[in-house]
Amino acid sequence: MSHDAPTDTGAEGALRAALDEIEPLDADAMAVAAARIDLLTKPPGSLGRLEVLAIQLAGITGRPDARVDARAIIVAAADHGVARQGVSAYPAEVTAQMVANFVACGAAINALAGSVGARVVVVDTGVAGAIPPVTPDPKRGGTLISARIRPGTADMTDGPAMTRNEALTAIATGRRVVTALRGDGIGLDLVGIGEMGIGNTTAASALAAVFTGTPVEAVTGHGTGIDDAGRIRKIAVIETALARNRPDPADPLGVLAAVGGLEIAVLVGVIVEAALQGVPVVLDGFISGSAALVAVALEPRLGPRLIAGHRSTEPGHRVILQHLGLVPILELDLRLGEASGAALAMAVIVAAVAMRDEMASFDSAGIAGPT
Amino acid sequence: MSHDAPTDTGAEGALRAALDEIEPLDADAMAVAAARIDLLTKPPGSLGRLEVLAIQLAGITGRPDARVDARAIIVAAADHGVARQGVSAYPAEVTAQMVANFVACGAAINALAGSVGARVVVVDTGVAGAIPPVTPDPKRGGTLISARIRPGTADMTDGPAMTRNEALTAIATGRRVVTALRGDGIGLDLVGIGEMGIGNTTAASALAAVFTGTPVEAVTGHGTGIDDAGRIRKIAVIETALARNRPDPADPLGVLAAVGGLEIAVLVGVIVEAALQGVPVVLDGFISGSAALVAVALEPRLGPRLIAGHRSTEPGHRVILQHLGLVPILELDLRLGEASGAALAMAVIVAAVAMRDEMASFDSAGIAGPT
Repeated sequence: MSHDAPTDTGAEGALRAALDEIEPLDADAMAVAAARIDLLTKPPGSLGRLEVLAIQLAGITGRPDARVDARAIIVAAADHGVARQGVSAYPAEVTAQMVANFVACGAAINALAGSVGARVVVVDTGVAGAIPPVTPDPKRGGTLISARIRPGTADMTDGPAMTRNEALTAIATGRRVVTALRGDGIGLDLVGIGEMGIGNTTAASALAAVFTGTPVEAVTGHGTGIDDAGRIRKIAVIETALARNRPDPADPLGVLAAVGGLEIAVLVGVIVEAALQGVPVVLDGFISGSAALVAVALEPRLGPRLIAGHRSTEPGHRVILQHLGLVPILELDLRLGEASGAALAMAVIVAAVAMRDEMASFDSAGIAGPT
Repeated sequence: MSHDAPTDTGAEGALRAALDEIEPLDADAMAVAAARIDLLTKPPGSLGRLEVLAIQLAGITGRPDARVDARAIIVAAADHGVARQGVSAYPAEVTAQMVANFVACGAAINALAGSVGARVVVVDTGVAGAIPPVTPDPKRGGTLISARIRPGTADMTDGPAMTRNEALTAIATGRRVVTALRGDGIGLDLVGIGEMGIGNTTAASALAAVFTGTPVEAVTGHGTGIDDAGRIRKIAVIETALARNRPDPADPLGVLAAVGGLEIAVLVGVIVEAALQGVPVVLDGFISGSAALVAVALEPRLGPRLIAGHRSTEPGHRVILQHLGLVPILELDLRLGEASGAALAMAVIVAAVAMRDEMASFDSAGIAGPT
């Protein structure tokens, strides 16, 4: 933290004030939803996780009839100084190239979000280079919100990835994006969060190690496809960064600044503002899971408001989900990021709401109950 | 088999001839699909099961660009004589009542099929009582195909549940339904299969025990919600039925007739005809899994053409999936049947096709590959 400019205590105070406003799940709304679901023409509990999800939606939104019509995927993008340490299978310029691909509607997330009727919003708080010019797809392309704070983080093996102020600014950006989507006429009933940033599984592994107290080796995987030697190097890089920065899990913002990322900070802000506005958040994989670790460390009441979209093949993701007590909706051996697993999981959530709203009751359908 | 009328060797010969026509997966189409997927803007293999599914669709259909636009759920319904042994939490008349509910669009499957854009087709080959009159939902209601063979099976503890001819007739009915849907103008690109039949987890457990060689106790669960004492009774009932009928797994049709069900036989027919016509089949849970056991015992080349939609909480379902070598798409603690899990899984299959078709390639998007 010694590299840091004086902290903007106003911004930090504003964040704390917002966190203090976050409420527990609405138990009354959940009870109403559960009672309604038990009247439907099926054996009680027989739709398993669908029922649990419909009840959780009630708790998050405070409405037993929570809507999920206006769906969005927020993809936060940023570069990582640590990428220079050779921790990724891909060169850093791919971050900017993929942002262009999101806007042009050529990425996996465009296809997967499209299949569940969610719009894609890309937030650039720290891509390093220029975004290559593309022709946006007028029908299905992603919206790009340019809000760069710095051109990628610093190399965390040399000191903090960013300043505390920069982390706070990125969190505030994430919060503003949620507010903007809520108020733009399309609205926002359900948000899936994901990311793009070459090198960001290194940051996520570092965050997972700090917040869960797990050895780096156990939370570090092959990312987008480095080989075994690369993974050994990646572990050493993370251990160097942790030794250099000595992040303190009791200071989540400090940890985020030290070994996190600008896109991860945006996702923290999305989680916070979505909670304040009663919008359910669907996490994607390892990176958005690491953002959830930061958010829940800042305010534990955020935990029950999160929905784990899937469990990825990254070993650290399993550790994160266990730490947060989240059971993923899907487990499809995904390891892409971009919110791909969150978008896929949204289809199950939409189906849970259809179940809740469209089924007949035993009474209305004239069906006998258990003997 | 001593209770049986002379077997209709014509029908049995026709089925065998059809089974002999089933081909292995189309390796060429799979290779083309796999090569196409590897060009897309994502790390190779990073979309896990989505990629596997897209390749499997190519193998089943013989087309690297297999469509899944025309989607249907087939719910086979029938009653079980063994229900009189107190093996279910619900009275037998619920079968007929739920068929009415499917037509009126009040059941879970209507909601879940609707959310993935699949039509619902209900096939009655053996409901015991009259279907209560209902007003079909003109927009979303299920189509009922009435093709009763007998009013429910006989009690399998007294002898075979049905004759070999009846099983063959039910299989032929399932085959005809597929042909009808393929040719009716809407078409059929992807079919999910499920069932309704009070008492049918008892039949499924019996089939699972016979075909997998697993003790009855290990493949018998709580069905729609019987208590522990009920489960003990259910195990004893199945053991009595197996001792009475002595089904021989080398004669799959004989096993189906002895301890199966009329709706299970319909699903066998759907699996066979879908395979012949290159239509991918999405299995639901334990009961449709037991139909898959019969089908694969009749013709092992059917196995790779099946997609396991989910894994239910019934212990026997895990055994069936392992026996068939199928990895389920979803695991959501479902235990409803009706094809509910198949419908939910269809959303993932549709997303896999969107991924395959809508993404840019590294070349077209100007994105760098691995370093």
